[in-house]
Amino acid sequence: MKKAIVLLSGGLDSATCGLVARNMGFDVYALSFSYGQRNAFELLAAQKVAKCLGVAESRIIDIDLASLGGSALTSSRIRVPKGGGGACVPVTYVPARNAIFLTYALAWAEVLGGVRSGDIGFVPGEHEEKTGFCTDIFIGVNCVDYSGYPDCRPEFIAAFQKMANLATVAGVGGHGIKIHTPLMFLSKADIIKIGIKAGFDYGITHSCYDPEPQEGIACGACDSCLIRKKGFREADVVDPTKYVR
Amino acid sequence: MKKAIVLLSGGLDSATCGLVARNMGFDVYALSFSYGQRNAFELLAAQKVAKCLGVAESRIIDIDLASLGGSALTSSRIRVPKGGGGACVPVTYVPARNAIFLTYALAWAEVLGGVRSGDIGFVPGEHEEKTGFCTDIFIGVNCVDYSGYPDCRPEFIAAFQKMANLATVAGVGGHGIKIHTPLMFLSKADIIKIGIKAGFDYGITHSCYDPEPQEGIACGACDSCLIRKKGFREADVVDPTKYVR
Repeated sequence: MKKAIVLLSGGLDSATCGLVARNMGFDVYALSFSYGQRNAFELLAAQKVAKCLGVAESRIIDIDLASLGGSALTSSRIRVPKGGGGACVPVTYVPARNAIFLTYALAWAEVLGGVRSGDIGFVPGEHEEKTGFCTDIFIGVNCVDYSGYPDCRPEFIAAFQKMANLATVAGVGGHGIKIHTPLMFLSKADIIKIGIKAGFDYGITHSCYDPEPQEGIACGACDSCLIRKKGFREADVVDPTKYVR
Repeated sequence: MKKAIVLLSGGLDSATCGLVARNMGFDVYALSFSYGQRNAFELLAAQKVAKCLGVAESRIIDIDLASLGGSALTSSRIRVPKGGGGACVPVTYVPARNAIFLTYALAWAEVLGGVRSGDIGFVPGEHEEKTGFCTDIFIGVNCVDYSGYPDCRPEFIAAFQKMANLATVAGVGGHGIKIHTPLMFLSKADIIKIGIKAGFDYGITHSCYDPEPQEGIACGACDSCLIRKKGFREADVVDPTKYVR
């Protein structure tokens, strides 16, 4: 089976994205990040999702975005805004986050493709026969029901893919790295319907930016909770999420 | 003064790149990475270079490339090849390394540009007046005397810059992120001449992939040492480096 890397955040989009990858016949390699999120519930959810998807391997990479600061999601000095609406790029934007996540995925794809195998150099094109490149990366970005982050848009993904093909041995060898974004143009309701149809339990996913600290109960009022609630309502599906309000 | 981020590895290329940025009138923000290098001498050299350049700020970000494996520079299971020559992409290639480094630089540029400043959202274009974006990133890549890594080539840099302008608030706001590669088309000898002319002491830089473990004396035989030796010879400048052989 062909290998694909799926970025899993623990949210409902990336879980659905993993389902799509699996249903396309890929062996899923789940990649999550510990990046100084203000809450650890996302990562617990990501691990539950990885297990539920039956992934071939699941990794959590520790990255230090918090030391750079600059986001309500990683800095305790910036308040998570409530009530929705407002400016083009909200403070919950984590600077260059998706670019960083995708670049790590790219590095792992090179390694999964066999770049670790020898102690002599690689000749692009001659290597494929030996191990098979890993050239498929899935990310659950969406530009319909989203928070206005620049790195969720299709033009960003297209530019990233082009860069990826110039940055790597697989790309230089002409094997065509593909960044899959199966959810890009779907509404949150349509995303939820994919999972429901596959029998997936969205109760294990976590979307809230600002959960109650003990048990991780979703606040129900941040941008992410509001979008999630609206999605379940529009999909006409019971929302399994427990909210503070 | 305008801020620029300079990636400093501790080698002679990035040191020269920092000199160029400073001479162009930028306030230099030095960014280095602890990425599971097999030797720590590079990072010590980077700190010496940052001090010598009189940078505004110097940061070392801890990133975990070693856990992904796949390179002789980060994996103790792969031998560093000696004697030069050989295949197109050597095993000392670290998968997607420059893409990862540049993406962190991008994140820091956003933060230096003031993305941390408020608890309300940003309106691209309205923000510049308040803090000034940081849109200049320097990397000392070179496609003349180099080891054949795909992520050192001008087409990779151009694609990265395009992606960067689509990934970030500064880019979306139309402020034009620029990835500067002042050394791209210079020979190693010409790079060395820039530093010598500016009175820079290359003795503080470290290039060797496989130094002697106690004092970090350069092996003199790896690809990087061979290129460095040749550069000093061709520049007709005394090489201040101490080599094992």
